[in-house]
Amino acid sequence: MPDKKEITSLKQIFEQELFNNIVPFWETHSQDQKHGGYFNCLHRDGRVYETTKHVWLQGRQAWMFSKLYNQNQAKPEWLKIARIGIEFLQKYAVRPDKRLYFSLNREGKPTWIQRKIFSECFYIIALAEYSRAVDLTDLMKEAEEQFEVVWNWSKDLSRLGRPVLEGQIPSRSLAVPMILLNVIEELTGGASTGYEQEIEECIRQILLHVHENKETIFETVGMDGEFIDSIEGRLLNPGHAIEAGWFLHRWAAILNNKELQQTAVNMIRWSHNQGWDQEHGGLFYFLDYKGYSPTQLEWFMKLWWPHNEAMIGHLLNFSVTGDQRDWKLFKLVQEYSFNHFHDDEYGGWFGYLNREGVVTHTFKGGPYKGFFHVPRSLWICLKLLEKLECT
Amino acid sequence: MPDKKEITSLKQIFEQELFNNIVPFWETHSQDQKHGGYFNCLHRDGRVYETTKHVWLQGRQAWMFSKLYNQNQAKPEWLKIARIGIEFLQKYAVRPDKRLYFSLNREGKPTWIQRKIFSECFYIIALAEYSRAVDLTDLMKEAEEQFEVVWNWSKDLSRLGRPVLEGQIPSRSLAVPMILLNVIEELTGGASTGYEQEIEECIRQILLHVHENKETIFETVGMDGEFIDSIEGRLLNPGHAIEAGWFLHRWAAILNNKELQQTAVNMIRWSHNQGWDQEHGGLFYFLDYKGYSPTQLEWFMKLWWPHNEAMIGHLLNFSVTGDQRDWKLFKLVQEYSFNHFHDDEYGGWFGYLNREGVVTHTFKGGPYKGFFHVPRSLWICLKLLEKLECT
Repeated sequence: MPDKKEITSLKQIFEQELFNNIVPFWETHSQDQKHGGYFNCLHRDGRVYETTKHVWLQGRQAWMFSKLYNQNQAKPEWLKIARIGIEFLQKYAVRPDKRLYFSLNREGKPTWIQRKIFSECFYIIALAEYSRAVDLTDLMKEAEEQFEVVWNWSKDLSRLGRPVLEGQIPSRSLAVPMILLNVIEELTGGASTGYEQEIEECIRQILLHVHENKETIFETVGMDGEFIDSIEGRLLNPGHAIEAGWFLHRWAAILNNKELQQTAVNMIRWSHNQGWDQEHGGLFYFLDYKGYSPTQLEWFMKLWWPHNEAMIGHLLNFSVTGDQRDWKLFKLVQEYSFNHFHDDEYGGWFGYLNREGVVTHTFKGGPYKGFFHVPRSLWICLKLLEKLECT
Repeated sequence: MPDKKEITSLKQIFEQELFNNIVPFWETHSQDQKHGGYFNCLHRDGRVYETTKHVWLQGRQAWMFSKLYNQNQAKPEWLKIARIGIEFLQKYAVRPDKRLYFSLNREGKPTWIQRKIFSECFYIIALAEYSRAVDLTDLMKEAEEQFEVVWNWSKDLSRLGRPVLEGQIPSRSLAVPMILLNVIEELTGGASTGYEQEIEECIRQILLHVHENKETIFETVGMDGEFIDSIEGRLLNPGHAIEAGWFLHRWAAILNNKELQQTAVNMIRWSHNQGWDQEHGGLFYFLDYKGYSPTQLEWFMKLWWPHNEAMIGHLLNFSVTGDQRDWKLFKLVQEYSFNHFHDDEYGGWFGYLNREGVVTHTFKGGPYKGFFHVPRSLWICLKLLEKLECT
């Protein structure tokens, strides 16, 4: 078991990494002082290599700075950064029909739209957290209304233009109930009031992906949760399943549901066991349940975000189980992550490694990597370590 | 310079690889005797790991078996294999509006449609080559009509449902004029009759991507061929540029255009120089012109098909230049390919290696790999080696 000293020392490492490395890197390099919003495509040294602004990452960064402002320290600079993101999104990303674009050019004109709900979801969490920072109920109302629209779309994604074709096997994607459950947590600030039915429905849907007898969480399952023996149905995404696990942990705590808590503990342990590369360390990005090669070319790579999710997952597990095995898993992932993703030379974290753990992509921000997974993970772990320190 | 003996020995290697390895592997494992069409998702040992039938690969396989039947040997078995693909596509893949699906389930019901023209293009070349095999002019007429429709779509891809948004920089993609030029070659059997204007237009568009002063071929350029300094505009795909080079070689020969021939020679040499990994060998999948990390996660991987294109490209270069440097490049790529992609144990070729050249995906066929690039390359090189043997 870790002693107080070890916990305190780790807490300091996380604090240092978040506030003296990650936050300053993005404060310094990502703000577009001229047109608003954030540059999210940042080279290793912080230079902007692409001015396109990806809406997922605009929303996520506005959310994260609002969160730090609300929960850590009310620094005017952080609020200002959150504001330029919120204003940019409100002005340019939202269409009259409440859909949001996927990407905008530097000036805010749209360049792409997806037939998915994720741009909208990250906008909602940004609005909600920012509204708490500035105490503007209008913004919270907008977030709630946007959620209602997204909730309805989520029941039938063909409304967003995805083709429905005769040969498709009706199926469920883990990503949808996961993100919606996380959005509700952010909307309510961790209370269940007003969204009891939606919460129950999200949890029910997530659990359809958890096959206890196989100790496996499937990304895609049939409408009743049944296994589908196809490329899609066999697909495992260990980092994603671990993230689903820690989302459920939070609700298990809010709802005081011990059974759900045990499921969350299992999801994180099982997914780690399946996903950890015994040869080279690190979590694989994708696997095939039956051991075929996943068809994704990048399946064997080690991405930063599954490791961010796993740090949270194992530390949450340890916080409720007190089991040394969970602490060891946390330390394993924490050491792998800090040794491989942290950039000593220019600050920030790399995002992509090959199977052996060598950096393959030198940028700090890209179309899918911004100021989100790293600071969220450091922040949540820091708070958990603080609690552990006091017990 | 290679002597006759070396050429003859290489010719035998290509012949052996095509007819005793690749063709039997796909003859044995890919035919769906029950529902028609081909299984294109084949495991290392030939087992079917996914029954979805990807339309690109159905068309390509029907084309390739028709080609071997027409140009190598009129084996009834090859014609029969071509026929089950053609019939499956005609019956299930073509919509009333002449668009084709991207994928069908085993029974032929559609599971996905893209907002692109490639399913259609591979269908056209399959129809055209098969019509020559069975001497059915109706089929050639269908191919010609389908081409007319695709040609019109190609002028404005928003007709296929791709969103046109205000912030997009108007741009040209190398893939479109390339594939259309190749389709015309297959339609006409290598004559320019009837398509003079279309051929000229495709060549004109391809050349907009060739920046002689930079010795670089860009995947995406502005409407007048200008360089765009963005992730997309800086993107290089060396194998694709080499393929464009050898497509132009063929037309340079047909049109007896020496200037075009020199451009083709340059495109292949330049792209090889930029794309070859000096450290580990093999052609990178993607590069960024300014040396940033490409945002594609798989940029550093070595895929089979760029090497197939490069074998054709360098051998075509050598055939017209007689320059020893081109022969050396051909040998370099040929040796790398046979040493890394060929599977001694189960036959067929692997498709995907990591940067160091280790196989990362064990399957022989997948959603984008079928009976096409390997046999096409072996077949064209075999014919070129035969010619060199006789000079």
